[in-house]
This record gives sequence, structure tokens and C-alpha cells, in this order.
Amino acid sequence: MQLKMESFEHPSAALPPPAIILVETQMGENIGAAARAMANFGLRDLRLVRPRDGWPNERARAAASRGDAIIDVVRLYDDLPAAIADLELVYATTARPHDIAKEVESPAVAAGALGAAAARGARTGVVFGREKWGLTSEEIGHVDRIITIPVDPIFASLNIAQAVILVAYEWRRVVLGDPTWTPFAERERSPQASKADVFAFFTHLEAALDAVEFFRPETKRPHMVRNLRQIFQKARLSEQEVRTLRGVLAALERRPTRRDAAQAAETGE
Amino acid sequence: MQLKMESFEHPSAALPPPAIILVETQMGENIGAAARAMANFGLRDLRLVRPRDGWPNERARAAASRGDAIIDVVRLYDDLPAAIADLELVYATTARPHDIAKEVESPAVAAGALGAAAARGARTGVVFGREKWGLTSEEIGHVDRIITIPVDPIFASLNIAQAVILVAYEWRRVVLGDPTWTPFAERERSPQASKADVFAFFTHLEAALDAVEFFRPETKRPHMVRNLRQIFQKARLSEQEVRTLRGVLAALERRPTRRDAAQAAETGE
Repeated sequence: MQLKMESFEHPSAALPPPAIILVETQMGENIGAAARAMANFGLRDLRLVRPRDGWPNERARAAASRGDAIIDVVRLYDDLPAAIADLELVYATTARPHDIAKEVESPAVAAGALGAAAARGARTGVVFGREKWGLTSEEIGHVDRIITIPVDPIFASLNIAQAVILVAYEWRRVVLGDPTWTPFAERERSPQASKADVFAFFTHLEAALDAVEFFRPETKRPHMVRNLRQIFQKARLSEQEVRTLRGVLAALERRPTRRDAAQAAETGE
Repeated sequence: MQLKMESFEHPSAALPPPAIILVETQMGENIGAAARAMANFGLRDLRLVRPRDGWPNERARAAASRGDAIIDVVRLYDDLPAAIADLELVYATTARPHDIAKEVESPAVAAGALGAAAARGARTGVVFGREKWGLTSEEIGHVDRIITIPVDPIFASLNIAQAVILVAYEWRRVVLGDPTWTPFAERERSPQASKADVFAFFTHLEAALDAVEFFRPETKRPHMVRNLRQIFQKARLSEQEVRTLRGVLAALERRPTRRDAAQAAETGE
């Protein structure tokens, strides 16, 4: 886990994330939601080409929630070439084929290429088009490659902030380098029980069941024991859970507790 | 490409997608955006536990955009146990650790497990909590495992619909079985040029440059030729693009066209 934490902290600082460029976005809410999505996955550089309702935009700030640090440093441009002039590898996202022959990549493949470019020092970006009709063919012509998101073809219309978060998420996968990583592991307040603890519980359980002649006929005992053990093996018990189960078992066995023993002595039973 | 198309159509029909269960969602917009996100990736079964503003909800329908087919068949429940009673493998999404020891998985790992469960006929679901504070520990206690999304720890607050789309996207990756798949390939109006076409262009280009004594000194010619060819190799030219380049070259060579030749004959040049 320690190693994974390191791989999580280190490359995210080292690899400059792609800029996100939104072209003629109509709704401030979408700009804000895109900023929030960027913040969720460590992206910082948001660029706007002619947002319809001008800038600054209070609806964008509200929708950004605590992603407002990104809203504070948004940069505005008059056209797409100006917005991407300092970048070296630029993708456009489109939901449908254009008339231009360009390489079309899935978000996973594109994020890998963006990560590789960033690792060699290139500045990168991803362009998102208008809510209603995306990017013009001329705008597509300004970028290097195309990302298209593998949506269900019968419902292909993705909200812009949703498209941004999917690209940002794939970027994060590249940064983490490990698709199984999670920010917190299984809660281990009580450590996993050792096999010895688990086996001692099995011995206890089976002895208790032998005492009440549970395993009948005797020939079926091995099979019944195996099935019973399997139930608790699957539960991957913690130390605390094994203690709890042994307490349950003792209670069911009606084994005299210390208080019972004291009472029995008092009443002379 | 044909094979990939098949792998795209077939398993999505065969594997029943997980149900999405939203617990006490406050804003209709978030329910609608979640429905739209589900539709984008082929999910259909949306269940609501006590939505704050009641049901039906016009803001949810508006935000669902064309995902309203999902809104039409939403089911309502009084509590989480009722909402997941018919399911066999249920995940909850959480942004922070709970006091309950449960397996915590990334969306990628969880989607794989959901796909495997669906493939053996199990009905599955993923639960999402309230906008402000997620799920109670009691609710977490009702599910089998936990999904947590690998957000940047300094900005961990994900919008519900954004969390839904990331889970739905990972489900889609499992259904497609190929993270490189895209719904449309590079636009191949003109097929990729064969190497023979490209080599013929190189021969043409180099002859034209020889004619104007471009390659000087002669000892540098092999190196210069290699660099020049590399430019066009990288462009991965289509047949049409090779024809275009040969036309450019012919024009620059000022090679007489048929019309020029006809004019020259007329004027006696």
C-alpha cells in the first residue's frame, strides 16, 4: 500500500495535466461543472473560447462548487488557434465522424498518449465543442487527433461536463498507473484474522456441534464440516469478528460464565 | 473493425447492466443527469429511495434530456433494503472511509466483478448517497462491497451524476471488452495509401529536387533524403493525399500541363 501511495502522490505532481479548452460553451453551469470535474482529477488549466454569456459568470462559479480555484484562473480566447497556440499535442472530442481524416482514439488510448507526451515535456490539451453541435470541421482541422467516447450509439449525446470528467478520469488512471488504486483501503480497525485464529474458531465450533450430535450420520461429517468452514472462509474474518463469533458460540453452548459459576456456588447448586 | 463492432453489439445485449439506486437525492437535476449518464452507457434500471422533492419531478425529466425513457420507468422505494431486495451483488459508492470493514474497490475492479456476476446470471446494483453527506453507516451495512473513485484527495467532492457516469463508463468498458474501442474509426473516405504509392511519391519528389540541385553536397544526400521521407511517413498519407502531393509537386516543377502544351503549340513557342 505504501508503494501505491507513492505512485499516487509522485507522478501527479510530475506530469503536467492537459489543458481543457471549451469552445463557445453556452451555459455557465456547464463551465462550472467542467471545472469541478477537472478539480476532481487534478486538472487545473481551463481555457474558454468565446463563452456565450461572457466572463466572469456567476453560474459557472456556483456550479464549480469548490472547484472555484480553477474558475479564478480561467483564460479567455477569441478563437481556437489562439487558445491552443502554446500546446504541442491537442485532441478534440467529437460525438460523430467528421469529414477530416484524423486518428480517432478512445479516451483510454488518448490518455495514454497525453501522458507519454507530458512525460517528455510536451504541453497538451483537449478541446470540447458547443452543447448543441460540437466543433466545426475547421476547428477539428486545428487539432492533432480525435477522442471519441464509447457511448451507446442509441443515446450518444453526452453533457459537456460529463465528457470532461471521463477524459479527466482517464488522465487520472494514467497518472496513478494502477486502475485498481483507491484512496482508502478496506477499513482495518481490526486486522484480518490469521488463519490460526480462524482454525481455532473452527475447532471450537465443530467441538460444540459434536457435543450436540449435529454431525449425523458420522459418514457425512467431513462433507458437512467442509461446507460449514467455507461459509466463514468466504467472510474473510477480522480478528475482532473471530472474537465475536467465539463469544456467540460460547453463549449458545450455555457454557457457564464466571457470574453463573459464582451464583451456582452461592445457591449451593 | 467488423469484429469489434460485433463485440460492441453483442455482449451489451447479453449482460444485464447494474441497477442504479439513488438514496434521498435532493435535486431533481441530479436525478435527471444521472439518468442521462446511464443512457449514455446502456444502463436502464434507475431506483430512487425517498427523493427529497417527490416524484415525478419535472426538473429531473428536463435534465435527463433524451434519457427520459429511463425517467419513465423509475421505481420508488421507502428504504434501501427494499430497493435492493431482488439483487444479489450490490456496491455502495462512498467518498470517505466508513467504520465498517468491507472490501473497497476501484471502479475498474468493481465493474469487472459486476460483469462477472452478471455473466453468471446475478442481478446487480450500485448505490449512490445524498449530495451533502452520502450514505449512513447503516445503509453501507446493507451492501456487499464499496466502490470509491480515485479522485484527487484535495478535491474529493464528486457530483452524483458524475459519479454515476464514471461507474457506467467502467461498466461499458467491461461490456465492450476493449478499452481502445471507439464508435467510429478514422474517417476512411480515401483509403490509406499503399507503401508503393508512397515510395513512388518519394521517387517523384527526390527527382524533382535533384533537378534543382537541392541535395548539396552530394555526400549529405542520403541523410537529407531520409529526413525528408520521414516527414511524409509520419503523416500516414491516404491515397487521395498522395495524389494531392503529386499534383503540388508537378505544379512546383512547372511541368507543362496539357493546356500549356496546347497553348505552346498554338503560339508556336
